[in-house]
Amino acid sequence: MEEANSNILRLRRLGIDTHTENIIFMRSDSPVCRSEGFTANTRVSVQHGAHSIIATLNVITSELIEDGEAVLSEEGFKNLQAREGDMITVSHVQHILSFSEVRAKMFGRKFNEAAIQRIISDITQNLYSKIEIAAFVTVCSGDNLGLDEVIYLTKAMIESGSTLTWEEPLIMDKHCVGGLPGNRTTPIVVPIVSAAGLIIPKTSSRAITSPAGTADVIETMTPVDLTLDQIKEVVKKEGGCMAWGGAVKLSPVDDIIISVEKALDVDSAGQMIASVLSKKAAAGSTHTVIDIPVGQTAKVRSKEEAFLLEYYFRAVGLAIGMEVEVLITDGTQPVGRGIGPALEAMDVLAVLRNEQNAPADLKIRSVQLAGLMLEKADMLTKGTGVERALQILESGQALEKFYRICAAQGGFREPSPAKLQHDVIALSNGVVRAVDNRKLAKVAKLAGAPKSPGAGIYFKAPVGKQVKKGDSLFTIYSESQGELSYSLTYLHSAGHIVELVAP
Amino acid sequence: MEEANSNILRLRRLGIDTHTENIIFMRSDSPVCRSEGFTANTRVSVQHGAHSIIATLNVITSELIEDGEAVLSEEGFKNLQAREGDMITVSHVQHILSFSEVRAKMFGRKFNEAAIQRIISDITQNLYSKIEIAAFVTVCSGDNLGLDEVIYLTKAMIESGSTLTWEEPLIMDKHCVGGLPGNRTTPIVVPIVSAAGLIIPKTSSRAITSPAGTADVIETMTPVDLTLDQIKEVVKKEGGCMAWGGAVKLSPVDDIIISVEKALDVDSAGQMIASVLSKKAAAGSTHTVIDIPVGQTAKVRSKEEAFLLEYYFRAVGLAIGMEVEVLITDGTQPVGRGIGPALEAMDVLAVLRNEQNAPADLKIRSVQLAGLMLEKADMLTKGTGVERALQILESGQALEKFYRICAAQGGFREPSPAKLQHDVIALSNGVVRAVDNRKLAKVAKLAGAPKSPGAGIYFKAPVGKQVKKGDSLFTIYSESQGELSYSLTYLHSAGHIVELVAP
Repeated sequence: MEEANSNILRLRRLGIDTHTENIIFMRSDSPVCRSEGFTANTRVSVQHGAHSIIATLNVITSELIEDGEAVLSEEGFKNLQAREGDMITVSHVQHILSFSEVRAKMFGRKFNEAAIQRIISDITQNLYSKIEIAAFVTVCSGDNLGLDEVIYLTKAMIESGSTLTWEEPLIMDKHCVGGLPGNRTTPIVVPIVSAAGLIIPKTSSRAITSPAGTADVIETMTPVDLTLDQIKEVVKKEGGCMAWGGAVKLSPVDDIIISVEKALDVDSAGQMIASVLSKKAAAGSTHTVIDIPVGQTAKVRSKEEAFLLEYYFRAVGLAIGMEVEVLITDGTQPVGRGIGPALEAMDVLAVLRNEQNAPADLKIRSVQLAGLMLEKADMLTKGTGVERALQILESGQALEKFYRICAAQGGFREPSPAKLQHDVIALSNGVVRAVDNRKLAKVAKLAGAPKSPGAGIYFKAPVGKQVKKGDSLFTIYSESQGELSYSLTYLHSAGHIVELVAP
Repeated sequence: MEEANSNILRLRRLGIDTHTENIIFMRSDSPVCRSEGFTANTRVSVQHGAHSIIATLNVITSELIEDGEAVLSEEGFKNLQAREGDMITVSHVQHILSFSEVRAKMFGRKFNEAAIQRIISDITQNLYSKIEIAAFVTVCSGDNLGLDEVIYLTKAMIESGSTLTWEEPLIMDKHCVGGLPGNRTTPIVVPIVSAAGLIIPKTSSRAITSPAGTADVIETMTPVDLTLDQIKEVVKKEGGCMAWGGAVKLSPVDDIIISVEKALDVDSAGQMIASVLSKKAAAGSTHTVIDIPVGQTAKVRSKEEAFLLEYYFRAVGLAIGMEVEVLITDGTQPVGRGIGPALEAMDVLAVLRNEQNAPADLKIRSVQLAGLMLEKADMLTKGTGVERALQILESGQALEKFYRICAAQGGFREPSPAKLQHDVIALSNGVVRAVDNRKLAKVAKLAGAPKSPGAGIYFKAPVGKQVKKGDSLFTIYSESQGELSYSLTYLHSAGHIVELVAP
């Protein structure tokens, strides 16, 4: 009884933002710490009414908080749905059983379906600490997941969140495996396909380790933070939408796992496939086209790797009742010229507006993808999809549909680049032989992308281009001197990004 | 210039204990966060004079700290050797290059020697975040490390800290692989061996995932927190010592890695071997005897596993110039009766004092190990070591030497068990057929061991013993009602711990 009382504390809020982790701050001399023997880094269970979270304990050895008080991180307040002054009960955390499955996997055992369901369900409920998720991400990395395990993971991730259902029999979707800066086809494909009368409720993600995710790009032109009902509405009205997947909690566990993958700068094939297809399935898609750019410095470096991914995508799709088609494309250099949210959005608008100097590569890739969908929908005979897509684009129907979708999502605005600019110039005459996408992406990220929407790179030196000494190879955009100078520091240590050969 | 200034902040101390992690708290509206684009969970570099650390950023959105101020966790103050009011410079963290080796290992590449050296050196300098260490621990877990990688890891860990050197040609050491509650032979072996005139500068570790480490046990009788000079002195005087390894920074990186292994409740074969032998080598040992208890519920479950470990121990020993002998012993049930620091210490003293009811199994195992060392030292012909050891023990020379070593380390005190006690009784008559060490250890840990030195279990039902309904099978000791009731909750959910069969 008395014990029980000593476990009840009053919540105080100090506005401590610990990102995605629940942290609770308690006095080292508090009855709870004394009676339960808690020390720094213990994980504790925190109850508030019907809600309960697991939090990592940070012990306070000063007078920062008073007797009988506890402080939660902002994330903790959110997950516990509590307010300052609320009373909470703190107790020992029950052992997280599902983690023993992760441990077994470290020792070479395969995951079975039940194991992955338990793990994903526990991660979804925020029961795993960051380091436990890091261990899970690591055992799933590389080629450590077999096809069966990827299927289990995909199913478990679908079940982890809400799902969309549609009356229409045919629901289109697309995804690009990424790693290729500027490959922003979604805001072009969606209006083309929906203008053709197909349903395409597209949700996109924000950047994991890249300078911009599709959602980051679209957000510079229209709100992407839509609820499920809003998505339903937009699609009902226009046939397509361009929303952020994270906001609607389709496969929400994905965002938790991704935050750790991001910190480790790892995302593995198996997890990537489960992440992509679980979101498509949750969105109700029946047909998905996957764009896999291949290039030495793209995420996928060889055709062999791409073929293996194609096999996994199609096989997992089959297992969850989704038809998946893969388009293997050229990933040797950036698509379009912008790298970074606003700069990529400007390329997108140039294509939709059929501007003279619109990047042709982005336009061609977009109509290829859109064409595949039009053919899939059996609206056309094989091979004629591209012409139809091109016709919809060049006739201006796509642009008009794009504006209508933006209006339905909350209005359109012109994207604007960052205020600080720095030109990187050619030190000699020559022909561009190769471009290092990874280093370009790094420079764009250090310049502030995607956190500063206007930051990034405007790229002007595609492979094969003749450049003269003093020509600008690319321009770096940044909102702050600190970020700009940091990106330049890296630039000067990084060696060749654009490789020139004597003409 | 202005940028540079805005990166300088005044340190404030709020007494936040974040265990082994450097955390820095900064205002979200601080010029640093704005100009550098820091957000929650960014890792930043913090300089103070000649010292520099990497810290995880927690953003403060409230008025908790003032403009131009930053708060460091206690660990951060320690590692930066800074005091409240000191000025620090905060900047972007340079990318930790060695982590790309961990990433490559996730994808199946082997570590080479240089890679492991860089990783261990970076971890030693606190450059790795907890989740990065978790990924490293995970890629090294199970049988993911080859012999060559274990050798590289061992060498790198030796180089990570200070080392001891001795004039004598022959330096003895021992280690038990553990997982077997109560197997506390060190405080018996050390006095026997040193009484025989051999040098044995024994350093022990604290518990990783067990209810008590040897250092925890010895600390209930004498100080173990010795400096290198104090160890030298004690050994010069008495020929042997019983110190905590962590205090003298022999292979200090081990403690950082272990804190994460502990949180994940994993310790892998390769890391275990590197951890053990690096500490022995750093302590200057030339001969080491390894005790590997084998049993269904011990850390090592099968003879095959033990043979493989023996091979690794001997081969790695060879590679670093150390002679290693392995003794594979019975691990089917606890050795002695105490489980937990003070309770195990009481067993140790009973053996040294040749008490009537001293646990025979602990006594026998101790003289076996001591005997092996006496033979290794060529003081005796093969097979006669045990008698000699027994003679030293039963003549009281060992006890006298034990007291002298304690005196040299700072004095001897009697260990005392925790105040709260609970008997777990037999529900029927029967003969003990099996004992679950893992569950026993769990109960002891939940009761407060090793944090409360007096907490744990006193075990009274060895395999083969006849018990009557109502007999006490074991007694749980705890310092707090909270811990006792939590251990009982687990006990009732855990099923059989002591298995009885009809007599």
